[in-house]
Amino acid sequence: MGELRAIPVRGLGEIRAGDSLAEKIVAALRRQRLHLEAGDILIVTHKVVSKAEGRVVRLRRVKPSRPAERWARRYGLDARVVELALRESRRVVRMQHGALITETAHGLVCANSGVDVSNVDGGKSAVLLPEDADASAARLREEIKKKMRRDIAVLITDSFGRPWRQGLCQVAIGVAGMKATRDFRGRRDPLGYKLRVTEEAVADELAALGALSGDKLSRTPVCVVRGFRYPRGQGRARDLVRPARQDLFR
Amino acid sequence: MGELRAIPVRGLGEIRAGDSLAEKIVAALRRQRLHLEAGDILIVTHKVVSKAEGRVVRLRRVKPSRPAERWARRYGLDARVVELALRESRRVVRMQHGALITETAHGLVCANSGVDVSNVDGGKSAVLLPEDADASAARLREEIKKKMRRDIAVLITDSFGRPWRQGLCQVAIGVAGMKATRDFRGRRDPLGYKLRVTEEAVADELAALGALSGDKLSRTPVCVVRGFRYPRGQGRARDLVRPARQDLFR
Repeated sequence: MGELRAIPVRGLGEIRAGDSLAEKIVAALRRQRLHLEAGDILIVTHKVVSKAEGRVVRLRRVKPSRPAERWARRYGLDARVVELALRESRRVVRMQHGALITETAHGLVCANSGVDVSNVDGGKSAVLLPEDADASAARLREEIKKKMRRDIAVLITDSFGRPWRQGLCQVAIGVAGMKATRDFRGRRDPLGYKLRVTEEAVADELAALGALSGDKLSRTPVCVVRGFRYPRGQGRARDLVRPARQDLFR
Repeated sequence: MGELRAIPVRGLGEIRAGDSLAEKIVAALRRQRLHLEAGDILIVTHKVVSKAEGRVVRLRRVKPSRPAERWARRYGLDARVVELALRESRRVVRMQHGALITETAHGLVCANSGVDVSNVDGGKSAVLLPEDADASAARLREEIKKKMRRDIAVLITDSFGRPWRQGLCQVAIGVAGMKATRDFRGRRDPLGYKLRVTEEAVADELAALGALSGDKLSRTPVCVVRGFRYPRGQGRARDLVRPARQDLFR
């Protein structure tokens, strides 16, 4: 493996419902004179995907339920955001100390079902996760392939908290054009020892790199990663969700 | 933020107890004609740190306790490794379905207290985590600063599993020369919305990047990350450990 590079894509502009995100990204790449190469990975914050797909809700149209109201009042939260988080969940994992950890319809376990008010319109609206971020990633990949004639991988990301560890880390919630993990199980290390458990979540590690390439205040929701030989194949972010029967922390 | 690069450091060679890791790294950098720059981040897999510090245990000298024996027999594991994992723990978080999740003396929650047999000597010995990886990182940083006259940050890493998500991700277990997180709380996004909870675990995201720059089979336990404006200050990996009172998944 040689050098690995992450290049932020600038000047994407504000994304609105119905926009073609692929067109906007291609235009930004061209302005920047950044030519995609085969094997590049495009890392895209879910927020611009959700906006393009119209997954934005005006908060004044949300009528919170009684439980959402009570919870919000107790911890000084916006009851409408709590209400959306509950609606977007299929299971509440923890609701404690002001934290609402849910499992979404996608099987993702995260705070507030991924519902977020930052980087939208100053607090008037909330963005939901894409309905099917694997499908969004696959579409984006196909459209960019068609426009730029390059075979690339696409990751769609969100920032998740973790139990036991402080701070958010960006992870992959949509994957297209690569496997989500690389699997060393059964292979031998340079000293002859056979690896037993080493399956690495490379899609999540790449998503983390995407976060470093921009930041929450810099309007750079897209970056290109070059030089990583990713595991070829048709992976999905759903492959990163641990099956319930192996989950010790339900 | 401009382009971000991760450059693997090659030809470090096998590390043995008592070796100066700083000297070995500096020699490898020189052979590669890789000149450190101020603001670079050196990302180092803990295994070479543990080896240099003599945190290696010959398995034939380990006498497993009865509980370790029983557990190992039930799941086809090596009872001596289980024994070491239990000795290195201060609390068993989960012991279920063959998985042993513990909290180490450092407060890290991980599988087998970080005890690992891969990439050591073909299965005869196990490597433990450094006793104080923050201190190891600080020493490494000082020594390299002295030898190369560059102010850099140092991260020491290990690969951890996560609840709910498949696959390991590399995280930071030792930090020196930078803050472990960047904190956007109280700042406003480009649309004027005040961020409430956004503290980002950049040290973990950088550690993930370190994993992508090598792999488990390639003997590249060190890489240099360039181009990331990390939060200056004296952070510690301990800052990444969530305090027990905020932990919903004890």
